[in-house]
Amino acid sequence: MSYCLGINTADGLVLASDSRSSSGADQVNTCQKMHQFSIPGERVFVILTTGSLSLSQSIITLLRQDFDAGLGLAAVANMYEAARVLGAMMRRISDLDRAALEKDNFRFNVNLILGGQILGQPHELYMVYPQGNPLRSTPDAPFLQIGESKYGRPILDRGISHHSTTIYQSAKYALLSLEATMRSNATVGPPVDLLLYQLDGLQVTHYRRFYSQDMDLIEIHNAWEKALRNAVHQLPEICFDGGDARSSPPYPEAAGWRESTEKS
Amino acid sequence: MSYCLGINTADGLVLASDSRSSSGADQVNTCQKMHQFSIPGERVFVILTTGSLSLSQSIITLLRQDFDAGLGLAAVANMYEAARVLGAMMRRISDLDRAALEKDNFRFNVNLILGGQILGQPHELYMVYPQGNPLRSTPDAPFLQIGESKYGRPILDRGISHHSTTIYQSAKYALLSLEATMRSNATVGPPVDLLLYQLDGLQVTHYRRFYSQDMDLIEIHNAWEKALRNAVHQLPEICFDGGDARSSPPYPEAAGWRESTEKS
Repeated sequence: MSYCLGINTADGLVLASDSRSSSGADQVNTCQKMHQFSIPGERVFVILTTGSLSLSQSIITLLRQDFDAGLGLAAVANMYEAARVLGAMMRRISDLDRAALEKDNFRFNVNLILGGQILGQPHELYMVYPQGNPLRSTPDAPFLQIGESKYGRPILDRGISHHSTTIYQSAKYALLSLEATMRSNATVGPPVDLLLYQLDGLQVTHYRRFYSQDMDLIEIHNAWEKALRNAVHQLPEICFDGGDARSSPPYPEAAGWRESTEKS
Repeated sequence: MSYCLGINTADGLVLASDSRSSSGADQVNTCQKMHQFSIPGERVFVILTTGSLSLSQSIITLLRQDFDAGLGLAAVANMYEAARVLGAMMRRISDLDRAALEKDNFRFNVNLILGGQILGQPHELYMVYPQGNPLRSTPDAPFLQIGESKYGRPILDRGISHHSTTIYQSAKYALLSLEATMRSNATVGPPVDLLLYQLDGLQVTHYRRFYSQDMDLIEIHNAWEKALRNAVHQLPEICFDGGDARSSPPYPEAAGWRESTEKS
């Protein structure tokens, strides 16, 4: 498994990925899942990948080959076309590899996130499914996740708003989402790649790779856990039937259930 | 899906469950997944269930029948034996129903959590797998989850310590864990049942059912989201290569990657 996410904010895009590659519990390796294709001042694309490393490598290799020849992502007119280029490449690799994989009971498993902008066009964020069909983020659903997405989702659900969360705040949410996932799931691991694409910048100016012992990451982790515990302590006390949360009077019907929405 | 959890603290047990029952996207119902068996002053057991409602109902019905006859949970000498009684009942229902289910490609899917105490014995928390084998919580792994467990796990991983987290603080973590899961996953839903068993109490004194419009739950939810956003805002700013998070200087090698663990 892996975990990657993209967040679409009013002032740009946040893209983040882990770097763990594993085959079951074995063959644990590090591999970057964030790939950049850019012509500064004209177009910037960032692609994140989860799933089979063999498949995503093939996809990126052939996308890069086309790009360097002025084709594919180098030639598309808008982000929707770019997402379709990714989808077409996934289908090409599916034609190459799917039958052989399924013969040995492996799934054709690869998911992509694409974020970027082309000069004169809005910035957009897409997910491309293994079947090659694209899904665009919307103001109502401003973030997209691929891979091991459940652990890191609540913090995004609670915090991210397309209109009011800045790109810098969103970068913190992305880091917390990845950090929560790495802590709870052994198949997602450092280093973490974090990239900000600022609206109309048409080049990448903010990128950072956090290794596991990165002092800044440890500081953010510690500050976060401390703040979280403080926040829990400061929550209102829970009132229970038969007594408030701080006292423990005898329960009137000890062997039965009391159900109520009323405070006692 | 469903979500239930138990937390073993030094001063007692916290048990919490959602109440959504569904068959795929259809047949969405409410059903309580928390079941109490107690002889006040002598023994208290609380059982949480996830998986097929038909299977868990059968298990609880037959456990209750034995209990009322002074057998099973009414007669066991310790919590390990109690967990084994649950496991044996799961195997009995497996013998009754598994073959017919699998004939139509349904899995034999039921998981239980058991928490409680018997007079003169320590309080304990168990999970019982669909195969009937029990797993006990330990000081290193003080909480157990069944059902849709990933969304609600990071908050527990970050906050719960067997030795230092009180039963009242743990109750807040349990509620936040359930609330996060309900928010992110449509197959987990209210009402939420929350129960505290205080060490050596040998009866249940703290129980509360939170319905979806419960004003206390809404207050906790709002206080939590506000505290979380404040905590994110107060995190250290992230430093990026090519500029700190607040400025956006031109990037020296715009088309390439810079990788570093150093602040610029």
